[in-house]
Amino acid sequence: MNEFDFIESLRSQANSRKHSTRVLTGIGDDASIISQSPGRDLIVTTDLLIEGVDFHRNATPGALLGHKALAVSLSDVAAMGARPFWSFLAIGLSREEWSTTFKDEFYEGFFALADHFGVTLAGGDISESRQGIIIDSIVLGEVASGAAVKRSTARPGDQIYVTGTLGGAAAGLKLIELGARVSEPGAVATGPSERTDDDAIQTLLVRQLRPQPRVGWGIVLGEQQLASAMIDLSDGLSSDLNHLCKESNVGAVIDAAAIPLDEDVRHLCGRRALDPLALALHGGEDFELLFTVAPENVTRLPKKVDGAAICRIGEITDQMGSVKITEQNHVWDLRPGGFEHFPS
Amino acid sequence: MNEFDFIESLRSQANSRKHSTRVLTGIGDDASIISQSPGRDLIVTTDLLIEGVDFHRNATPGALLGHKALAVSLSDVAAMGARPFWSFLAIGLSREEWSTTFKDEFYEGFFALADHFGVTLAGGDISESRQGIIIDSIVLGEVASGAAVKRSTARPGDQIYVTGTLGGAAAGLKLIELGARVSEPGAVATGPSERTDDDAIQTLLVRQLRPQPRVGWGIVLGEQQLASAMIDLSDGLSSDLNHLCKESNVGAVIDAAAIPLDEDVRHLCGRRALDPLALALHGGEDFELLFTVAPENVTRLPKKVDGAAICRIGEITDQMGSVKITEQNHVWDLRPGGFEHFPS
Repeated sequence: MNEFDFIESLRSQANSRKHSTRVLTGIGDDASIISQSPGRDLIVTTDLLIEGVDFHRNATPGALLGHKALAVSLSDVAAMGARPFWSFLAIGLSREEWSTTFKDEFYEGFFALADHFGVTLAGGDISESRQGIIIDSIVLGEVASGAAVKRSTARPGDQIYVTGTLGGAAAGLKLIELGARVSEPGAVATGPSERTDDDAIQTLLVRQLRPQPRVGWGIVLGEQQLASAMIDLSDGLSSDLNHLCKESNVGAVIDAAAIPLDEDVRHLCGRRALDPLALALHGGEDFELLFTVAPENVTRLPKKVDGAAICRIGEITDQMGSVKITEQNHVWDLRPGGFEHFPS
Repeated sequence: MNEFDFIESLRSQANSRKHSTRVLTGIGDDASIISQSPGRDLIVTTDLLIEGVDFHRNATPGALLGHKALAVSLSDVAAMGARPFWSFLAIGLSREEWSTTFKDEFYEGFFALADHFGVTLAGGDISESRQGIIIDSIVLGEVASGAAVKRSTARPGDQIYVTGTLGGAAAGLKLIELGARVSEPGAVATGPSERTDDDAIQTLLVRQLRPQPRVGWGIVLGEQQLASAMIDLSDGLSSDLNHLCKESNVGAVIDAAAIPLDEDVRHLCGRRALDPLALALHGGEDFELLFTVAPENVTRLPKKVDGAAICRIGEITDQMGSVKITEQNHVWDLRPGGFEHFPS
């Protein structure tokens, strides 16, 4: 049984044992939706980050890990079209790590991002681990009643969009695995002079280690009821688009030429005759938003939010379960090729 | 810096950066209190359980671990005088463990307890761990606005009570460390025939592995506004009473003879000339409730809730920071002797 099958079986168990009619959406979306009061729904998400699996300690400065732990959960809240308010952190550290400066750097990075989005650290837990760093990041947010954007509500004819560019985080991970290291937390050359390979490498490392959750886009898309369905790109476009289509009982066709490739990925791949599209399709952790928009709402979409643009990459179809990608004159099946913890 | 000093520094950082006036209580209590709507406050708690630290895999059947993961968080919600509603589980498993029946047994034990208290599994996360089982258990509950019972509101003259009996869970842990194993999940001899050492050992193992959170007591004490302050006994009576007194800026004096010792601990200790009082004072994980009651409310206390009785063990004093225990004609300082992950 693979990870997604197991989650599916857990979901049906949880649904059959549901004691609270106030759980509007439980297992199976980016976050859970709980009916809170006549005017508001509560959004809850939790993300477990484990050393050696979700991050490599020697490639990850503490401050960047603190940033990322919060960022991944903010991204889930954004994918529901909600506004994040409160964070809880459960942290396991070995005795060795406890005596280093790691935890101070971690909270420094965490608080910088939390302050940026007005999120309050409201609680947590600290425990000892036998080995390695363990972080569970929990974020609670809110949305107007019924306005949360689910994965399951895309309709045929809806246009498919993504924020930002894709492939950068996966390229960053590959660079880390090849031994590249970030030169200084957050320091990235962005001057007008010619970009070198080193600049591109540093930018991609930061894309992997310091993802920018699309909190502003999430709020705009939710509050203005612009998105018909949404998911964040954590597993990878091919996997996450398949998740969204499966939940919505629809299909999709996207255009390879329309996918916004990360320019640094393009730069490095071009010099090495590699294919940046594969990273954009199957690489995970870009933490961009993938969302669908009904045709009548397309003109209402803002061009940019918080500096991030969007691209239209395709359209939802009524071909249930059929996710296709067109490339010049070819049409391919786009099968999930993204990240899975436990493949079958 | 020890664990509690670090939490204290984190608390002051979080408070100085508080963006939300709706966080009524953040770090520093059994759970956090968030103002939800004019009538209700939201209670949030998270507890991290790590294999090899918080439990021993070879002594802990999966179903009992599923029970305990939920029980420890339900106990925190009870300690706030609140009613639990929703649970979220973040779980890390090694690839090896993923292919065993562990996760099925775990959720079986979890759902049995969740169903008992009408708690709905509303979400979570699954991740791979490099080694061992990692569980973060998150429970959300609710309480009438302003009715949550904090640690910080005990007043001199208040009477101090505990639910149930103490020392059993710590004795169970010692037995596990000595090699004792539970004979069958949940199977405990309770017949009228003479209790043997084996019966006592099995009961104590279950006290450690399958704690009973005092959910009913928590709700009654909160809803009827009977408790002036409350904490659950997770670290141990000596530590947790000191926590409560410190937060409330008061002192306490308790009577050794009044402490409800676990009868099986007494039975086994008696035959080995050991002191059951030490386990009751400094042993952790009984998950009983320690609470204070204003003198005028003492007669309103029920005798039992859900079969669990309470004992009056002492009184709150105005001697800030002075926690004493009387034993016959002696008075001792009761210093925190309970569990700490990272002692200084």
